[in-house]
Amino acid sequence: MNAPVSSPTVSTARIAHPDYRARLMSADDAAGLIGPGAVVGMSGFTGAGYPKAVPQALARRMEAAHAAGNPYTIKVWTGASTGPELDGALARAKGIDFRLPYNSDPLVREQINAGTVQYFDMHLSQVAPVAWQGFLGPLDVALVEVSAILPDGSVVPSSSVGNNKTWLDRADKIILEVNSWQHEALHGMHDIYYGTALPPHRQPIPLIHPNDRIGQPTFRVDPAKVVAVVATNTPDRNAPFKAPDDAARAIAGHLLDFFQNEVRQGRLPASLLPIQSGVGNIANAVLTGLMDSPFDPMTAYTEVLQDGMLDLLASGKLAMASATAFSLSPEAAEALNAEMHRYRQRIVLRPQEISNHPELVRRLGCLAMNGMIEADIYGNVNSTHLMGSRIQNGIGGSGDFARNAYISIFMAPSVAKGGAISTIVPQVSHVDHIDQDVQVIVTDQGLADLRGLAPKQRAEQVIAHCVHPLYRDQLADYYARALHSSYGKHSPSLLTEALSWHQRFIETGTMLAG
Amino acid sequence: MNAPVSSPTVSTARIAHPDYRARLMSADDAAGLIGPGAVVGMSGFTGAGYPKAVPQALARRMEAAHAAGNPYTIKVWTGASTGPELDGALARAKGIDFRLPYNSDPLVREQINAGTVQYFDMHLSQVAPVAWQGFLGPLDVALVEVSAILPDGSVVPSSSVGNNKTWLDRADKIILEVNSWQHEALHGMHDIYYGTALPPHRQPIPLIHPNDRIGQPTFRVDPAKVVAVVATNTPDRNAPFKAPDDAARAIAGHLLDFFQNEVRQGRLPASLLPIQSGVGNIANAVLTGLMDSPFDPMTAYTEVLQDGMLDLLASGKLAMASATAFSLSPEAAEALNAEMHRYRQRIVLRPQEISNHPELVRRLGCLAMNGMIEADIYGNVNSTHLMGSRIQNGIGGSGDFARNAYISIFMAPSVAKGGAISTIVPQVSHVDHIDQDVQVIVTDQGLADLRGLAPKQRAEQVIAHCVHPLYRDQLADYYARALHSSYGKHSPSLLTEALSWHQRFIETGTMLAG
Repeated sequence: MNAPVSSPTVSTARIAHPDYRARLMSADDAAGLIGPGAVVGMSGFTGAGYPKAVPQALARRMEAAHAAGNPYTIKVWTGASTGPELDGALARAKGIDFRLPYNSDPLVREQINAGTVQYFDMHLSQVAPVAWQGFLGPLDVALVEVSAILPDGSVVPSSSVGNNKTWLDRADKIILEVNSWQHEALHGMHDIYYGTALPPHRQPIPLIHPNDRIGQPTFRVDPAKVVAVVATNTPDRNAPFKAPDDAARAIAGHLLDFFQNEVRQGRLPASLLPIQSGVGNIANAVLTGLMDSPFDPMTAYTEVLQDGMLDLLASGKLAMASATAFSLSPEAAEALNAEMHRYRQRIVLRPQEISNHPELVRRLGCLAMNGMIEADIYGNVNSTHLMGSRIQNGIGGSGDFARNAYISIFMAPSVAKGGAISTIVPQVSHVDHIDQDVQVIVTDQGLADLRGLAPKQRAEQVIAHCVHPLYRDQLADYYARALHSSYGKHSPSLLTEALSWHQRFIETGTMLAG
Repeated sequence: MNAPVSSPTVSTARIAHPDYRARLMSADDAAGLIGPGAVVGMSGFTGAGYPKAVPQALARRMEAAHAAGNPYTIKVWTGASTGPELDGALARAKGIDFRLPYNSDPLVREQINAGTVQYFDMHLSQVAPVAWQGFLGPLDVALVEVSAILPDGSVVPSSSVGNNKTWLDRADKIILEVNSWQHEALHGMHDIYYGTALPPHRQPIPLIHPNDRIGQPTFRVDPAKVVAVVATNTPDRNAPFKAPDDAARAIAGHLLDFFQNEVRQGRLPASLLPIQSGVGNIANAVLTGLMDSPFDPMTAYTEVLQDGMLDLLASGKLAMASATAFSLSPEAAEALNAEMHRYRQRIVLRPQEISNHPELVRRLGCLAMNGMIEADIYGNVNSTHLMGSRIQNGIGGSGDFARNAYISIFMAPSVAKGGAISTIVPQVSHVDHIDQDVQVIVTDQGLADLRGLAPKQRAEQVIAHCVHPLYRDQLADYYARALHSSYGKHSPSLLTEALSWHQRFIETGTMLAG
């Protein structure tokens, strides 16, 4: 990993205000301003726009302290997941004590599941208001990557917005990383809404169309709080996407058929409603599938813009996209940067309390498409926990979108680990989305439309359409016996077996009965 | 049960429009307009404002048809629970095939849990928009109790609003029961908002304070759709409240201490924020406790007005209350009717899509207080299912409020059935409210403030403060072994034991280990 500070490619041309330039320092010096026990609000959302130099310098300080026998950990608040230079570096230094609201770093995950990092896994729309509500305590430092500091002292956001507005307003001290790698033409793409408040002072949020701009293009910053400015020139972690496999293509196919039928039935407009798409290869496959769909012109009101969304924008099928961050492959990031001036007109990046706001998701009527770990026969969805106890990533924005969506869709391949795990189980081992919030379940096997159905009707659809053939008889057998012997017959269940598939996997390495 | 039709006390003075008066008929004749297989949208919310004559007449027709060997069932949509003359009568006639969105009738419950009635248990805010979305199919008949028909043909709502606006707009045919028992001065209390739409045409809902009136006092009705008008004079089912017992008083005490501390810490205004209170004896005890609290003047933005709320209004501690229905004891109903002109100024009854709207609950910052069946050590809450499979009532509005509340509180006595059931369990047998939506858990034993905590921190609070002494060692023992042996240590769990307390209850009649 590079330590980009003070490298010859770092430019300070983006720091156009003398007061800020006066606070320019090395990442090592800036890291010295973050002491043990500090609560730090960092930028970063899905590998975009996170600080890249100071966290690594801080990790080095922590390692030195630990080597000397001194404790040195901090509490880390972010937008969502970040990159290896932040979560990875701090975790390697055993420097994270508490983490919110979302993580996908493998090393942090390992420490959470070992029980050494306390992880508060939150609805992403609620982080900013909760930070103001007070019970989380003070925020000592905001450590935020930005793309420029303007002559008037206002600050141009980077490739993600996340909770940065809130960290900058809320923290006692501010450290800015000004990253010259970020495109200058990001300026003007962002829409930072300063109309939020705590109750009883909340007002309606005046956003009616996904492309409405209701705020300003820059962050306001109190210069008196800025204790350090660090210049960097480092790319975002732009992870490559895998090409869609057969399962992903099958899922996309089922979903597009469903949308086409909804339009035919008059239940969706011909250009659909604003789409929300979770991150990952299946979501990307669905977006790719939309390239050849008849829906035109679409809009997106979502959390993250990934490759497929950029392709849809380029083709014109997608008129515009609203999100809080990019999450691109290296090739897509290059393509975006090459034509940033063109894309900028049709992309809006917003704070995550706005991109994910229940008020707006419900008003716009988003079509929410999110991945899952498992679903049960009644349509309860587990998005977060393996075998009920190991966290994978976190609930993220899925709850913000699913409960308020016009149609709430969850999708995954019908099996994982070569068939050792069935995505469809008698009872999910952890619930993130209750059956009321899950309207459509899609696997490579098919699509179950659960809207308006009672539990046993849902079970019939899920068993008929979603379960992999390997597990079909096993699941049908469970359900038949539950129908016969359950304590209640509203949501028939055999408590001694409901979680037995997971236990079998732990003990034998497969959910398949012997 | 009385059949009030054509009784000498029934007055037609409330039917002030000649076209409607021309369609006056007996309940038996009106029931004849509802054929087998019909989908009927009925009024009624928590035993207030439901039709009382036609459902009983319909039940008699069903019984006659069944005696003759002919099938006769209907699909029943309502606001929420109703009264014995509706759900009870139809269930006794085995006349309900499908039911949404909420039920508390014991006979319907029995049929749901026997597997003979399909029950779609829904978020109450979503019923009206879902009815427009199309996938539920057509609505054949609206059967709605009103308190008067005005000379201009507009219709004055009754003691609940529920989904009546939607049923009247959406149904092919309309049957009105005009109930002279309802107070004439209800006219002017209601606020019927006609600004909702399906996306992409949704607008911000212009409600900023609980007492804002954003609509009109009457329903609009298309006279061409009105096929029958039936005059009645029958009281609402006004169930008596039990006096608060020791557990209810203890819960109320813990909660009031919590609120006082929040005010002291500057995290809540001295007059609190709008309170939402579920229905039942514990909720009522909390409201009674607020009579002697220092919070003044409070407001309520809630679903149902029960006795305690009326007392708070009478005392002046509560400045105003917004809801969708009354749910009063006979004595409180009498007190309300005696002073309806006075109360009317400080009570607003709204459609349930507005009383429970996530946009408004979040904007107003409601303090949500709801009952529960059980909670687990991580703060997941089960509001609906006994032992995972038997439905009790339904999720009702608890999900609308809990996820969007400023503080989301769930409460119940720490044991039920004389100690045979522990309210706090290793893992809930059904999830209605995920840990992210449960911030405070209160039992008679104490209060666990779970805000901002990671799972193991939450477990410590719940075990320390909420579990009954009978079960404390048993639960602490489970958790200690889970901490040691769990597959993952983020949310430690022993899958073979997680649901064993419920299974033990089914097998032995108690959750206590032998």
